[in-house]
Amino acid sequence: MKNILSMSQLSNEEVLNLIDSAIDFKAGKKSEIGQDKFAINLFFENSTRTKSSFQVAEMKLGMKEIEFEASTSSTSKGETLYDTVKTEESIGASVAVIRHSQDKYYEDLVNNHNLKIHIINGGDGTGQHPSQSLLDLMTIYEHFGSFDGLKVGIIGDLSHSRVAHSNAEILTRLGASVCFGGLDSWYTPEFAEIGPHMSVDELCQEMDVVMLLRVQHERLSAEENKNFSKADYFEKYGLDMDRVNMMKPDAMIMHPAPVNRGAEIADDVVECDKSYIFPQMANGVFMRMAMIEAVLEGDNAEDELTGQKCKIVLHK
Amino acid sequence: MKNILSMSQLSNEEVLNLIDSAIDFKAGKKSEIGQDKFAINLFFENSTRTKSSFQVAEMKLGMKEIEFEASTSSTSKGETLYDTVKTEESIGASVAVIRHSQDKYYEDLVNNHNLKIHIINGGDGTGQHPSQSLLDLMTIYEHFGSFDGLKVGIIGDLSHSRVAHSNAEILTRLGASVCFGGLDSWYTPEFAEIGPHMSVDELCQEMDVVMLLRVQHERLSAEENKNFSKADYFEKYGLDMDRVNMMKPDAMIMHPAPVNRGAEIADDVVECDKSYIFPQMANGVFMRMAMIEAVLEGDNAEDELTGQKCKIVLHK
Amino acid sequence: MKNILSMSQLSNEEVLNLIDSAIDFKAGKKSEIGQDKFAINLFFENSTRTKSSFQVAEMKLGMKEIEFEASTSSTSKGETLYDTVKTEESIGASVAVIRHSQDKYYEDLVNNHNLKIHIINGGDGTGQHPSQSLLDLMTIYEHFGSFDGLKVGIIGDLSHSRVAHSNAEILTRLGASVCFGGLDSWYTPEFAEIGPHMSVDELCQEMDVVMLLRVQHERLSAEENKNFSKADYFEKYGLDMDRVNMMKPDAMIMHPAPVNRGAEIADDVVECDKSYIFPQMANGVFMRMAMIEAVLEGDNAEDELTGQKCKIVLHK
Repeated sequence: MKNILSMSQLSNEEVLNLIDSAIDFKAGKKSEIGQDKFAINLFFENSTRTKSSFQVAEMKLGMKEIEFEASTSSTSKGETLYDTVKTEESIGASVAVIRHSQDKYYEDLVNNHNLKIHIINGGDGTGQHPSQSLLDLMTIYEHFGSFDGLKVGIIGDLSHSRVAHSNAEILTRLGASVCFGGLDSWYTPEFAEIGPHMSVDELCQEMDVVMLLRVQHERLSAEENKNFSKADYFEKYGLDMDRVNMMKPDAMIMHPAPVNRGAEIADDVVECDKSYIFPQMANGVFMRMAMIEAVLEGDNAEDELTGQKCKIVLHK
Repeated sequence: MKNILSMSQLSNEEVLNLIDSAIDFKAGKKSEIGQDKFAINLFFENSTRTKSSFQVAEMKLGMKEIEFEASTSSTSKGETLYDTVKTEESIGASVAVIRHSQDKYYEDLVNNHNLKIHIINGGDGTGQHPSQSLLDLMTIYEHFGSFDGLKVGIIGDLSHSRVAHSNAEILTRLGASVCFGGLDSWYTPEFAEIGPHMSVDELCQEMDVVMLLRVQHERLSAEENKNFSKADYFEKYGLDMDRVNMMKPDAMIMHPAPVNRGAEIADDVVECDKSYIFPQMANGVFMRMAMIEAVLEGDNAEDELTGQKCKIVLHK
Repeated sequence: MKNILSMSQLSNEEVLNLIDSAIDFKAGKKSEIGQDKFAINLFFENSTRTKSSFQVAEMKLGMKEIEFEASTSSTSKGETLYDTVKTEESIGASVAVIRHSQDKYYEDLVNNHNLKIHIINGGDGTGQHPSQSLLDLMTIYEHFGSFDGLKVGIIGDLSHSRVAHSNAEILTRLGASVCFGGLDSWYTPEFAEIGPHMSVDELCQEMDVVMLLRVQHERLSAEENKNFSKADYFEKYGLDMDRVNMMKPDAMIMHPAPVNRGAEIADDVVECDKSYIFPQMANGVFMRMAMIEAVLEGDNAEDELTGQKCKIVLHK
């Protein structure tokens, strides 16, 4: 595939192939598909975790990274996103991982222009975050071997999450059923269409996977932040050991991290037996290797020639 | 050569050799001259484009980069530029690419000290920007095969440009003739000595190369910025398709980028047939490879020994 | 050894082994112990010099670096240090070099958790800075071949220095005697226990090593900074050529850098024959290679498996 922009773009088969490939990388598969190629990670919003994970994936595939710091870039002097991406392509980047605050920023890039560089969406606005969704799916699949009939509960700020909606959709598409927990006001109609709202206690008792979301104070309004009580949230919606003990023996706890210890999750739950939070991060690297490999696979040697507009190449 | 500091330092033969070498790199020449060597890119002024291009060039030659962030460096605690450069040399850097706001910052470094590290000027104040000049020359040479008799028009803020004056000089020296366009107030006596001032329409009709400069708002005075009208500038001096259609069939449009779409150039001109703007960027990497190779070529194995001031080396 | 956290942790034998190993690296020893491994440099306080030196050491051992910028990291969103370090371990880092403003930040990491990642202390609060101490020791040892009976004078802001106290202790432990110079108010009881306070003239006449410390304006109080006169300090405690000429023929001048020219050291002393300031920096890279090699040596292939919590690895 040329680019990976959203979960809805991917067929079930493509999702399962990416999971297969990521599991192979985790089991030790080597690839030199990135040898002598360059990647650029254009993060216009901060995300150390996602950026680092992509960087490691790139380096493990043999790629080199071109540094990019949004705050000092030409974009901050008013350059268009297209011009920035086209510039990176011109100086030799084969893959651009982009995180941007604007929903579907990638549509202009892929619909209105003819870029050779591969674009992987590292998160757009409150839209999608496909590499996070895919590593979540990989971690579930590794544990259960299938999505069929699984019950997944997503608890937290659904409305501000990049993964809640796309995870709910893709899990449903793959045969799981999805339920939701957290503040009523976060359970907007788009979620109601997918599955029921339940109390956290009920979710803990019934779900195979309890997927927590981070309280994203930076995305709440001033009013919402003012009224937010961490202790209160923890009591009503937080996952503590009492609730963990209600869970099925084989159930999983997941969280995209960073965690707010004492808000949505208790300190001692973060690394308890049922928790897959740090294994999710480890899987993230392998999934991102699979994604980069998938977009690079279509390239052939010809694309590497940079003999653009030069009448005289051998002039001596 | 030990360092590359300015265009005036380079003989015509040296310029042509660098172009030759850059074209060879573009055609696929490999070099491992940088293997096991380190480069440092000391950018005290932001320039993502130039810095990235040097980074890619360094990596393509096998070099590794030592990170440097001016805003958090000891320079910001009052360390002299010499001490910073000598420190980088001490920890193992073979090449320092430096961009600095002070005109001819490099004179103190090369005249008053005895540095082993090679210095490549990545832009000094409103002085020189040799890698940009050289990639411009390479792009012209690739197209026309010679500079002899070429007519080059430079349009824009001549007085604040790092390349306008040195490009004009070197092009004249290589056999081209140079004319200028843009605000009268930008056409200072140093340019009047080199070539005539013409309207943009005349330039488009007569030139083989139309070289646009970016309106650099960050270098204009508050007064100048206040009086500046983008639409007005575009009408009088901007390159739109009507003007492109006046150009000779084989003429080239060049621009150092980033472009201000709708100010000095129309949207649809940026990637039109006559435009070499993105190919210039691609050429920049190859030219920078040629420059780095040129300064490293003189080194011999002995320089690699770091046995400074150690009486006891094999002490066991 | 698993981690390198402080000088007091290291036995005399371990110190001498690290020095041996660093001298071997300087003499050309190669090691690929870091091949396919990742390092992360978590600098929560700025220190270009130390960070760059570690980066070069890591790259010379074949390691790749995961980028980290404290100001834009999740730590700035309230993530605990442990969660940050565990995250880096999860995405694949084998070594974390950490600089942090909190004294003994590492105690929680190594006492309360079970991290696999190796921690090298790159400086904690006003506590320790073992890589600086070790490179100082290496530079002295290279010159004198032994510490036994050496007289070392440390001049400067003892109370705010990360290396004054630990250097004094380790030098005493290795058989040297240590004296102190500088403002009386900086000569606190912990130093009085180790050695006498002397005038700078006396120190220059009697010492084998004169170790200067930087005046750290950023660590002085507003009151102290207000009353500080650079010229005054230089006259009373600064090292000028007159004082250098009082020194023994074979004596050494050392300074952790960056230097304040004209405050604690005269311009022409910085690179005089007796000065080892830049050679110290060169040695720093080799010592840091020795440190990283020392922590990685215990790892075996098994540790590399990242098959955490995956029931289904070969699922096809």
